Parts: sequence; C-alpha cells; structure tokens
Amino acid sequence: MSSTKAKFEAKFSTLSHNAYGKSGIRLTKVINHGDRQELKELTANIQLEGEFENSYLQGDNSTIIATDSMRNTVYVLAAEHDLSSIESFAQHLCKHFLTKYPHVQDASVNLVEDLWLRIQAKGLAHPHAFVSAGSEKRSTHVTADREGITVHSAIENLVVAKTTESQFWGFIRDEFTTLPETHDRVMATSVEATWTYGENLDKVDFNKNYETIRQLLLEVFATHTSLAVQQTLYAMGEAALHAVSEISEINITMPNQHRIAFNLEPFGKTNKNEIFYPIDEPYGLISGTIKRGS
Amino acid sequence: MSSTKAKFEAKFSTLSHNAYGKSGIRLTKVINHGDRQELKELTANIQLEGEFENSYLQGDNSTIIATDSMRNTVYVLAAEHDLSSIESFAQHLCKHFLTKYPHVQDASVNLVEDLWLRIQAKGLAHPHAFVSAGSEKRSTHVTADREGITVHSAIENLVVAKTTESQFWGFIRDEFTTLPETHDRVMATSVEATWTYGENLDKVDFNKNYETIRQLLLEVFATHTSLAVQQTLYAMGEAALHAVSEISEINITMPNQHRIAFNLEPFGKTNKNEIFYPIDEPYGLISGTIKRGS
Amino acid sequence: MSSTKAKFEAKFSTLSHNAYGKSGIRLTKVINHGDRQELKELTANIQLEGEFENSYLQGDNSTIIATDSMRNTVYVLAAEHDLSSIESFAQHLCKHFLTKYPHVQDASVNLVEDLWLRIQAKGLAHPHAFVSAGSEKRSTHVTADREGITVHSAIENLVVAKTTESQFWGFIRDEFTTLPETHDRVMATSVEATWTYGENLDKVDFNKNYETIRQLLLEVFATHTSLAVQQTLYAMGEAALHAVSEISEINITMPNQHRIAFNLEPFGKTNKNEIFYPIDEPYGLISGTIKRGS
Amino acid sequence: MSSTKAKFEAKFSTLSHNAYGKSGIRLTKVINHGDRQELKELTANIQLEGEFENSYLQGDNSTIIATDSMRNTVYVLAAEHDLSSIESFAQHLCKHFLTKYPHVQDASVNLVEDLWLRIQAKGLAHPHAFVSAGSEKRSTHVTADREGITVHSAIENLVVAKTTESQFWGFIRDEFTTLPETHDRVMATSVEATWTYGENLDKVDFNKNYETIRQLLLEVFATHTSLAVQQTLYAMGEAALHAVSEISEINITMPNQHRIAFNLEPFGKTNKNEIFYPIDEPYGLISGTIKRGS
Repeated sequence: MSSTKAKFEAKFSTLSHNAYGKSGIRLTKVINHGDRQELKELTANIQLEGEFENSYLQGDNSTIIATDSMRNTVYVLAAEHDLSSIESFAQHLCKHFLTKYPHVQDASVNLVEDLWLRIQAKGLAHPHAFVSAGSEKRSTHVTADREGITVHSAIENLVVAKTTESQFWGFIRDEFTTLPETHDRVMATSVEATWTYGENLDKVDFNKNYETIRQLLLEVFATHTSLAVQQTLYAMGEAALHAVSEISEINITMPNQHRIAFNLEPFGKTNKNEIFYPIDEPYGLISGTIKRGS
Repeated sequence: MSSTKAKFEAKFSTLSHNAYGKSGIRLTKVINHGDRQELKELTANIQLEGEFENSYLQGDNSTIIATDSMRNTVYVLAAEHDLSSIESFAQHLCKHFLTKYPHVQDASVNLVEDLWLRIQAKGLAHPHAFVSAGSEKRSTHVTADREGITVHSAIENLVVAKTTESQFWGFIRDEFTTLPETHDRVMATSVEATWTYGENLDKVDFNKNYETIRQLLLEVFATHTSLAVQQTLYAMGEAALHAVSEISEINITMPNQHRIAFNLEPFGKTNKNEIFYPIDEPYGLISGTIKRGS
Repeated sequence: MSSTKAKFEAKFSTLSHNAYGKSGIRLTKVINHGDRQELKELTANIQLEGEFENSYLQGDNSTIIATDSMRNTVYVLAAEHDLSSIESFAQHLCKHFLTKYPHVQDASVNLVEDLWLRIQAKGLAHPHAFVSAGSEKRSTHVTADREGITVHSAIENLVVAKTTESQFWGFIRDEFTTLPETHDRVMATSVEATWTYGENLDKVDFNKNYETIRQLLLEVFATHTSLAVQQTLYAMGEAALHAVSEISEINITMPNQHRIAFNLEPFGKTNKNEIFYPIDEPYGLISGTIKRGS
Repeated sequence: MSSTKAKFEAKFSTLSHNAYGKSGIRLTKVINHGDRQELKELTANIQLEGEFENSYLQGDNSTIIATDSMRNTVYVLAAEHDLSSIESFAQHLCKHFLTKYPHVQDASVNLVEDLWLRIQAKGLAHPHAFVSAGSEKRSTHVTADREGITVHSAIENLVVAKTTESQFWGFIRDEFTTLPETHDRVMATSVEATWTYGENLDKVDFNKNYETIRQLLLEVFATHTSLAVQQTLYAMGEAALHAVSEISEINITMPNQHRIAFNLEPFGKTNKNEIFYPIDEPYGLISGTIKRGS
C-alpha cells in the first residue's frame, strides 16, 4: 500500500470537511390498488457526514457505508414505505441512516419527483396509463442530525410566461445603460420555489401544501401587474406564506427568460409588440427569501 | 486571395451535393385579440439547395442568400402571417424562397413549436398568462421544389408509461439470450410520430388533425394489451391512419425506456412487480412506417 | 389477448417499413499489455431490418432477437475482438447478425468512441492513467446486407476557431438583408466530417486514415483564407480526398458558431475587432459532399 | 398599478434576503499581438446584494442597476482590461460595482473560461487558429464587500480514468451490502477542485498556480495507489496545498463514474477484468476540504 501522505511533513494539512454519498438513485414504484395503479418516480441523492476521516487519510474503509449499499437501502426501504409524499420518505431515509449507523452525524436526502398525469381515454382517467407532466419537478431536501430534522420542499422548473402586464422602468440610467424603459413587455421565467417547514412535522399535509403553493404561484404570476421581476417574486412568495401557516419562509428564484423585440424598421414595418426572439443567454437572475414576521 | 484548390490537379474532385441554411431561429409571436392574447413560440430551421457551387469552389458569394437574411425573413414574414398553424407558415416560407430566388431549387423548412397552456386562475383560463406544456413538441417539416410541396407533421417527445398490460415473451432464445420472458412489465417510451399529407393541402385542418392523432396515440397506448412494443406501435399508427383520411402514411419511433425490476431477494424480500429502476441506456429503439392501402 | 387490429377492416393499411435495435450500449474495454494498459470506450447503436412483421401485426415475437440479446452480443464479441479500430469491430458485429440470423436482411452498426489521452506524469506517458480528450468523438457507421458492406467513418464535434483570415462579402443584398459585409471576422465551427470507403476494405488502415484526415481538417481550416464557410469546407474536404485514396467521398457539415461584434459606440469606444459575444442560436448550417472524379 | 401586497395585513412578512444579477454573459476577446493573436472566451455570472428592497416591496426600481447594464459593463471593461487571468478580471469587475454604486454591499463574480489550444499546422503552433480543449473548464469565483475580497479558483470537469491501481475493500458489510470487495477496478471521475487564496492577492501568479495544480491533480491521480476514492481525493488536495503556498485550502469533489464488470459467465466466458459498462447513474459523490495547518 503506497501513501502519498508520507511524502509530506506530518500534519501540515488537515481534512476540514468531508461528505460523501450516492447521487442519481432512480426509483420507480408501482402501487397496485387492484382496480387502478399509481406510478411514482423519483431520483434520490444522499449525502452523509460523520466519522469517515480514516478513509480519506489512510484508505481505511472500516467506517465507510458503501454508496452501493446506500442505493440498496433506497430500494429496500421504498418497498416498505407507502411513498405517500416525498417529504415523508426523505425523512424516513434520514432517520434510517442516523439510527442504524451511530458514527453518522448528519444525513441529507434530496428527492426529485418526476410528475405523471393519468391519460384521459374516452373522457376517463385511465387506471394504469400515464403521460409525463413535463420537465417541471417536485422535490424535497431533508437534513437531519441527532438534534433534529429540517424539511424543505420545492417546485423546480415551473416555466411560465405572460404576454402583457409587465413593465420595467425607473431603473438607474448611467453611462453603462442602453436598455430602454418599457411599460409593456413579455415576462417569462422558470420559477424555482423552496419553502421551509417549521415545527410539528408529523401533522403537515405535504401534498396539499404543494398543490396550494403551486396554484398560488401560478395565479399571482398571472394576475400581478409587474413593475419588476423582483416585485412579482415577492408577491408570489408572500401569497404562499400567507396561505400555508406551517411554512416559516420561502425562497424563490426567477431567471428572466428574455424575449427581445425584433426590429422590423429596416424592413419598413412597425413591431406592434408582436414579434420577439427568445434568448437563453444572458439572463437576469433574481432571487429573494421571504420570511414570516415583521 | 489564397486558394487551396490550386494545389491539386484540375477536376480530381467535384461537389456532389450542397445545402446550407439557418438553424435555431427562435420566434415568439404575441397575437392580440383585445380581451385576450395568444402566445406562439417556435424554432425554425431552413435549408436551401440550388446554384451555390461557386461559393464552395471559388468563394464567389454572388448567389448566396446570407443565412442572416433567412433569419430576417422569418421575422418579417411572421409579422404578416397569422401563424394559425405551423404547417401553413412553413409552406409560406418555402414558397417565399422558391418564388423570390429563381436559383433556389429546393427549400426545406422545419418548425418546432413550444406548447403553452393558459394558466387557470380562479377556475378560469387566464387571458394572457401561460404555463409551459413541457418538453413535448409539435413540429412540421415541409419540403418544396418547383414541382410540388410535401408536408410532414409530427409529435415529438410524447412521454408515456403504463404500469401493466404489457408483455414480452416468445422471442428467440439462443446462447446470447439472458432476458427472462415477462407477462407483466412496465412499458414506457417517448413517442415520436410523423405523418405525411397527401393531396389537397389547402383544405387540410392541420390543428384538428394534430389534436385527433395526439389523442389517439395516447388512447391506444393506454388501452392496447401489448405483446411487443412493435405491436403497440403498429396499433397506434393504424388508429391514426384510420381516423384521419388526409394522411397517407405515419412513421412512429418508440424508444423503450426500460424499468428494470430491482432484485429484493438478497434482502429477504420479494419484489411483487412494485420496485423498479429506470435506465436511460441502453434502450431498445423500435420504429415502423404504416401506409394506407393493402 | 386483445387486438386493436381487429377493429379495422381487413388490410386497409400495411407496414411499409420496420426496423428495431438497441441504442446506447456503452462499452469499456481494458486491454492489458502487461507493462501498460489501453482504455477503449464506445457507445454502440444497432438496428436490424428483416422479417419482423409478425411482431408488429400480431405480437408474434418468434423472429424477434430481443434488444437485450443484442446488448449481450456486443459485450461477448468485444471480449473476443481486439478492438484495434471501431471500423473493424462494427464490421464484425454486422457480419455476426447477418450470419447467425438468416431472417435478418440488413444490419446497421454505429459506434461512437470516447477518446482518451494518456496522462503525462513527470514527462512520461502514464501506462494506465488517462485524461478525457473532450467532447470530440470518432465514430463509424457500417451498414451491411448479404450483397455487401459499406463503411463510413467520421469525426464529430471537432470544435475550431480562427480569429482572422475569414471574410464574407459579395452576397445577395436585397430588402431582407441587414448583415454588413466583412473582410475580417472570427470564424468558429464544430466540424462533422464523414468519409466513405470504397473497395478492398480488408487492406484499409482505418486508424491511420483517421489521423491523417483529422490533421488535414485542422491544418486547412487554420491556413485557408476563407471567403465563405462554404469555400473552407470544400477545401478541407478536397484535401482529405486528395490525401487518402481509399475514400470515395467525404461529407462535411459546419455550423457557423457566430461571434457577434459588441457595439462599443454607445460607451464612447471603438471595437477594434476585439470584443465579441458568442451566440448558440441561430446558427448558419453549411454542408457539402465532395466526391472523387470530375 | 395593482399591488398584491395590499391584500395582506401590514408587515406579516419580510424580505430576509435578496440578490440579483446577470448570468450567462458570454464574452470573446481577441488580443492582437501583430504576428499572432490570442483567443479568450468566458462566461460571466454576476450577483449583487445591497439596498434593493424597494424593488421587491413596491416595484420602485430607483436603486436597480438593470441586469442589461451589468452585461454592458462586462463588455466595456473587457475592452480595457488585458484579461491576463480570469482572476484579475473578476476582481476588477467586483471592485467596479462596489466603487461605482455606494448602495451595493456585496458583489460576486463567477467567470468560467472555455479553453482553446493552438492548432499545430506543419509542426508549428498556428498564430491565429485554435481547437477547443474540450469540456474541461477553468473558473474563478470572486466575492467582495467593502471589508475585503476573496478569490476562489477552480478546475471543473477534469475527466480522468485509471484502469488499475484502484481498490475498494474493508467497508461495512451488513444486511444492505451486496457490493463485492475488489482489489483491482477501473476508477473514473470528473474532478472539480476549488482552491482559496489567502492574503497578498496582488502578488499571486494565478495562471502559474492553475497550471501547477492541474498537473499535480493529474499526476497524483495517475500514480496514487487508491484504497478509496476518498483517499485519492485527499492525496490530490494535499499535493496541491503543499506545492502552492498561496492557497489556504482546497475543496475537491469526485463523482465516482462507475464502470461495472459485465458478467460473461452466462456465455461460458470469464471476464478477466477487461469488459465493463459505464453507467451515469447512480454515482458515488465524494467530497472533501483540505486545509493548511494541523
């Protein structure tokens, strides 16, 4: 066994932080209710912190839970768990790692759910056939140590656009400014919203809250007259915080997916706010965290 | 002006085919009906063939329509066109290039539409706010020369899954075979279906046909008891061909997005067809073209 | 067993084309020479055509080679084969399917190789450690039936740029033209070149030809004074055809990855052809096929 | 002007954090030395924090620097700056925003550089033609407030593999463990390494340090006999910390890009550690931070 470490003077460096785990564990669970079936699909990412230094320092793996074993754990526990919500399953996984392995100090589980809709066949929701709800995801990030557990829930990649009722004016004009003011623009974004649960996790209805917040994000985006992406973001977060008393804060990120008006003047035409081209880059990236309380 | 060509003996090679154009032309059109607005978004890809040899052979660009001018053309023509269907706009673009430039022999236009749904706010479809319908696309590919025009329409990335009523058995078993037969598996795929229109293009309702075919693809996928992906594919195509008399053939591609049963036996459990893991690679890739007539 | 087919009148439609296979079969082979090892990695895509109609029409899989068996075949044959070139292994796979299964009429094998370079450690090429050569790929596409075999070889995603010696002027100026002429621009592209071998495949040194053509594509791109992407493309292809007598034609595709000059005038500065921004979309897409003979 | 805020009781919520900026600002700079030219390409991401609450709370944009103006700033400053290293340009940008706008409290600039190599033509490095160095990136992340400035430098996506001298055994075996121990496996990863500079930033040679660290990461990866990914990671970080006295710590992330041995036994063959298949998911994700000092 070679050791690069031996080449250097003793203790000139230390391992100040370490973590490891398994990412990209993809799970499909079919839940059979007899006359109909449910399809649940998610990707799990697990990270553990604890007494793993000897693996880093000496290649001594005696405290290492193989990442392959973490993968097995997800499938074995999924077989027993009802997967009624990703938040409950993520908590279950965290508790498992902390309970089973005393030398694990922190467990972090992120679950990202692929969403499926039942196919409508002859006007009825089909009992076992599904169509993808697209690239929007529901996710959760649960972190736990022996003191407690924190649950974050999120919507990722909720892509929305409004074709009017968005303005942007009154910003700083200096020698670096060429952007014209506008009182009517297309506003498009891919919303990522993450909310944090407070106490009494056992009583929370995670699925209902997810539905409530998703619908509010859509409605406020649609109906808010926007003077800035920042303002719309705040209004969306405030509405979620107002509606769901169990969450203590919400963080929203809204990349501004610009639609640039195409200049029709060289062609003898006027662009009556009708013809645009989307660009992916560069994009404004706006974020804010809204907290309960004054 | 240097010329690499001069280095070689005269005429040892010829340009046997050439084509060029602009790809990735992204267009947003907002159509304002006063009380409500429509949002149309698409990406255009244009390829022209014709008398362009001198650009390749000598760098003489006198017959070259700059690809930047093609881009301008898309925006200028989009301002005038109602974009009622991508098929009609693609035909309009093809005809424009053939009419305006006598030395263009073939024009090929592919339009890929991003689909948006109106946001439901307080139970009503919002007049100017939209949520993305996801990564599924509607597209068209129109090719034209001075003899005629051909219209292909397509659905791309229609991601579907069924959790039962799919079988696969009776295939060849030889020394390369390890796959067990199954009478109950998860079947998932991303359907790509392309149909070809025949005569009388002026009378076709492209939007209605798209809706009809999309719904049929979903319904047949859901309700067909599958003995092979091939069989389900054929049934889906046949149903489309039967329902829409204006199409002469349909090509369907269905990559088999496998869900592999996770082996729970090492953990003292039985997998009652409940726990799977999806894999992206490798994947079966099945295709077929179904034509009208016996 | 249900049958959608039964719903329709007999023979109103036919299966005019079918094909299926396995895609995304990823293979790593370590070749151990004792004092040093080689690392070969590729992705295989296989498509077969033949007498498979009964699977489509009736779900009768008795002629179906499971795509899982195709996958197994790749690994089993790779264990025996030296993988000295992807072209030789692809031919071997094609011949295997045609020889073993009389009802297979056409076999098509595409192999895409990930390229690795030996790590230089203390100035020496390391015997068993490698660094990725990046996103450029070497590939081959072999098609075979019982009449013969065709070998195409390719370089994909050879990303190159030159900062001067590229011009574009003299193109059509009409009412759709806004692009200014330029006598000095940045030219960048991702070359895809595919060449076709003629007779006497047994005597071809595929690896040497690949190296020769890759180097020529780079050199001609670098040294050619370009009046059009089209002209540079032709010069690159002609040089390859001239140098390698065993190839009968070469097809090159060069998307024009534009660098747009940033307008510094609003800021009181002149852009001396120094400051640009790259855009991914839209992009000019130029292609040409150059054939031996006049 | 509507206001969602008005709907809720005063001050039930507060904006606890805000930040915004421009991401994906892509810059190309050609530096002309007469007989040869340099090509620099990077993507800039800027985030500012400061007194921006009124935009969120009331849509009052009077303190808002438009993200479009940030974009302009990058190009204007790039025209003046020599771009000798991304670290120096990122510091310059941070200082600009803090100096010019008193209400900006924190500026964060991330620059990701695309790497180009000179094309070798007839054995010589060409003066103005380049080939992409691939998907590996060099990057920097500089954060600054009025108290000081912190510089992080990084290598991203350094993809490496070794075909032997990697082991993994002695890990926990319990009821969740199925992974066999191995004394000879393929080890492949995509290294991301981020190092932090301490004092005296003006004297640092960022380019030399980057080259030194990159070469050491490659060499230690190649020559270390690995008992765990963790151990190799630590050895790589320690070597970098030892060689470059100006850095105070280094964080390394190494996803374990598994190559799974293909089971040849069903086919009557033995896999002599030769035939593997790579999988993208799931993957072990190992990270560690190594700090100077005991």
